[in-house]
Amino acid sequence: MSGATASLAQFIAASRWADVPASVRHDAKRSLLNWLGCAIGGSNAPSVGLAIDALATFAGPAQATVINRGLRFDVATTAVINGVSSSVLDFDDTHLHTVIHPSVPVASAALALAEHLEAPGEDLVHAFIIGIEAACKVGNAISPEHYACGWHVTSTCGVIGAAAACARLLALDDTQAAYAIGMAASQSAGLSEMLGSPTRMFNMGHAARGGFMAAWYASRGIGSSARALEAPRGFANAFTTRCDWSVLTDTLGVTWEIAANAFKPYPCGIVVHPVIDGCLLLRKRHAIDAAGIERVEVTVNPAVQTIMSHPEPADGLRSKVSAQHCIAVAIVHGAAGVHQFTDPVVREPAVADLRRRAFLLCCDAMAKDAAKVCVVMKDGTRHETFVEHSKGSAELPLTDRELEDKFRSLMAHGRIGGDADRMIAMMWTLETVADAGAVARV
Amino acid sequence: MSGATASLAQFIAASRWADVPASVRHDAKRSLLNWLGCAIGGSNAPSVGLAIDALATFAGPAQATVINRGLRFDVATTAVINGVSSSVLDFDDTHLHTVIHPSVPVASAALALAEHLEAPGEDLVHAFIIGIEAACKVGNAISPEHYACGWHVTSTCGVIGAAAACARLLALDDTQAAYAIGMAASQSAGLSEMLGSPTRMFNMGHAARGGFMAAWYASRGIGSSARALEAPRGFANAFTTRCDWSVLTDTLGVTWEIAANAFKPYPCGIVVHPVIDGCLLLRKRHAIDAAGIERVEVTVNPAVQTIMSHPEPADGLRSKVSAQHCIAVAIVHGAAGVHQFTDPVVREPAVADLRRRAFLLCCDAMAKDAAKVCVVMKDGTRHETFVEHSKGSAELPLTDRELEDKFRSLMAHGRIGGDADRMIAMMWTLETVADAGAVARV
Repeated sequence: MSGATASLAQFIAASRWADVPASVRHDAKRSLLNWLGCAIGGSNAPSVGLAIDALATFAGPAQATVINRGLRFDVATTAVINGVSSSVLDFDDTHLHTVIHPSVPVASAALALAEHLEAPGEDLVHAFIIGIEAACKVGNAISPEHYACGWHVTSTCGVIGAAAACARLLALDDTQAAYAIGMAASQSAGLSEMLGSPTRMFNMGHAARGGFMAAWYASRGIGSSARALEAPRGFANAFTTRCDWSVLTDTLGVTWEIAANAFKPYPCGIVVHPVIDGCLLLRKRHAIDAAGIERVEVTVNPAVQTIMSHPEPADGLRSKVSAQHCIAVAIVHGAAGVHQFTDPVVREPAVADLRRRAFLLCCDAMAKDAAKVCVVMKDGTRHETFVEHSKGSAELPLTDRELEDKFRSLMAHGRIGGDADRMIAMMWTLETVADAGAVARV
Repeated sequence: MSGATASLAQFIAASRWADVPASVRHDAKRSLLNWLGCAIGGSNAPSVGLAIDALATFAGPAQATVINRGLRFDVATTAVINGVSSSVLDFDDTHLHTVIHPSVPVASAALALAEHLEAPGEDLVHAFIIGIEAACKVGNAISPEHYACGWHVTSTCGVIGAAAACARLLALDDTQAAYAIGMAASQSAGLSEMLGSPTRMFNMGHAARGGFMAAWYASRGIGSSARALEAPRGFANAFTTRCDWSVLTDTLGVTWEIAANAFKPYPCGIVVHPVIDGCLLLRKRHAIDAAGIERVEVTVNPAVQTIMSHPEPADGLRSKVSAQHCIAVAIVHGAAGVHQFTDPVVREPAVADLRRRAFLLCCDAMAKDAAKVCVVMKDGTRHETFVEHSKGSAELPLTDRELEDKFRSLMAHGRIGGDADRMIAMMWTLETVADAGAVARV
């Protein structure tokens, strides 16, 4: 075998825990801690309840645990639900080059299968790393054109990542792993149009499910194409206008995408994060009272205008893609946490008023992780700042301590009992845990 | 609401059985009879056993029947397996304009749900018709460019058809039906690369499952885009280079795609069917003995060369897309039924020998349902015929009696007990059957 599919399959089948550098293992545990926090924090969201209600009627035996809900379903169903809960807050990780949020599909699938298999923590972390590499390196090969074609890249590439992680957990050989990739590629789906609706979370849950099933099918002897990614009528042909598989084939096991995974300090669209940093900074520095503001002008990369200019979001969900709402809560509340993107806050008069006085000025030269923020007061005073790199960006990643604080805040939001310190300690030593399923049963 | 998604949703929600013309009802029963025969005939194929083995581990409660296997699983799982069994023989129907095989995804989903709901036969036939219209009219709007982009159109459009059928069975209102379409569009998947592997059947089974789940999610209050088909970052944008939604919006309830559904007399690629007709005719007319043949020359539309020139198929599955194999069995066996596309027949020396002496001559002017066949004997004699329209084409559809004969042969292949005449009679009067699930429990 040769080609992208074979290279990826061989990487999946041949990878050994001992080959994974220590720093990569640590990066993986950072991602898993962040993912688990998101799943706990999102576990009580209405969409999760609806997902459970809809899926329970058809669910199979109690094989895997729905995080923080006291329910157990079959692996595939659990993967969907944990995919919904870990993405519903839009607080999950981002592979910055591709804008894939890789942990949701990969961890939701891998953890459910690991629990069913009673696999040790080491195997889960290892499989998770392999899955992230698969999703993000496939994404690298077809970005940015793939996203520009209208695809929800987290689900389209995530299903392949989920398949790779589960292929590793099931110890597939390289032929089976290629079939798992093929079956996953032929289930790859998800439209960007859904980013403003609850279907967004299901795109990711279905990617987790589809990837798991692809690996399981392959493990049970069901065949597929061995050239699904690169064949003339295969994945890249259908899903992108340009691709370069050498960025996958030349880097597998050499560079690690998980090291480029970033974590959001705010549960909303990432392109507006430098704006929030600037607003929070100015509010604190100048003790700004929102009632005295004439207008807020932010100078941003045009992506903010394209993706997030929604001055009147209808509800909490849609406020996450409203740059104007982000500006308003950062200044009115002095915070942009999970609470600031809920329906009641969207309806607060002071927030709604400031949203209407927030203006986006686009500048092609502004980097995506930078912004200029200017608050113009009614008395004519102008407060300005320039944010060169937003918190959570590649240049200014969240520290381990900041990730722990984020985990604690998500635990509080999820109204979970239990000892946060003990859970955090378990995640930092996950490769030594005898039963990976303990993560799901937190 | 306006636009393609809203039009389709309103059609689904507003359609009443009384609005469906009698001829359309009869066409639907022809399609369902053909589909059930294919599912019975395919039910013992190895791929079906593998699907059952893989899925049973995760399946939910006994809600719907796996055709001819004495097993019951949850609706979603059953839809996948019946999708595999009804497509595995490649003997299912074809909507000629789009090359969609619409009954597999639509009927597999609708029957499983109808059985679970204990819906009457009338509701099943009605929902099936609505689903076929949705799949094929969406297909019409994006064809032929969509297929040319590398998509397996039966699964990409079939998931929308399955959602429409299940939306009708669940009596969704127009908002819910639009969400069902949206959720289905965002699960739409399937690569043409898979047409030569077992993943092909799973593409269709997954389309059935995804469409059912989409409608179920919508019925349980999960939202989606209301403009999934036509939105700038929606279905058509991602899945085709050109579309014309007016062919959907202007024709819903006016023309009926199920009337344009064709049935294969031979379980192999449809473009070679006129060649088979010609070979069978010459063999019978001249009592041709294969041993006396020097060569067979067939003049065909270039599509035959492009899709089906495979002189040495590796096995039964691949012989279905080998024009040379079709020629060989038609002349050696005087038949091109299910048996002729099995591994043992592929290995028969006489068949293998004649495959190597079968030659395709392409002619742009030859219609796709026409062919010229010339058998050149070793003694120099030439037997020739021209087939203007192949059996099963739009101009020469299978008669009801021919469909009944096909059903009987598929029952025999599926080694099913029971009274074929009674089953055929039930299908012709399906709208009067009290419990649609009786179809699945044949």
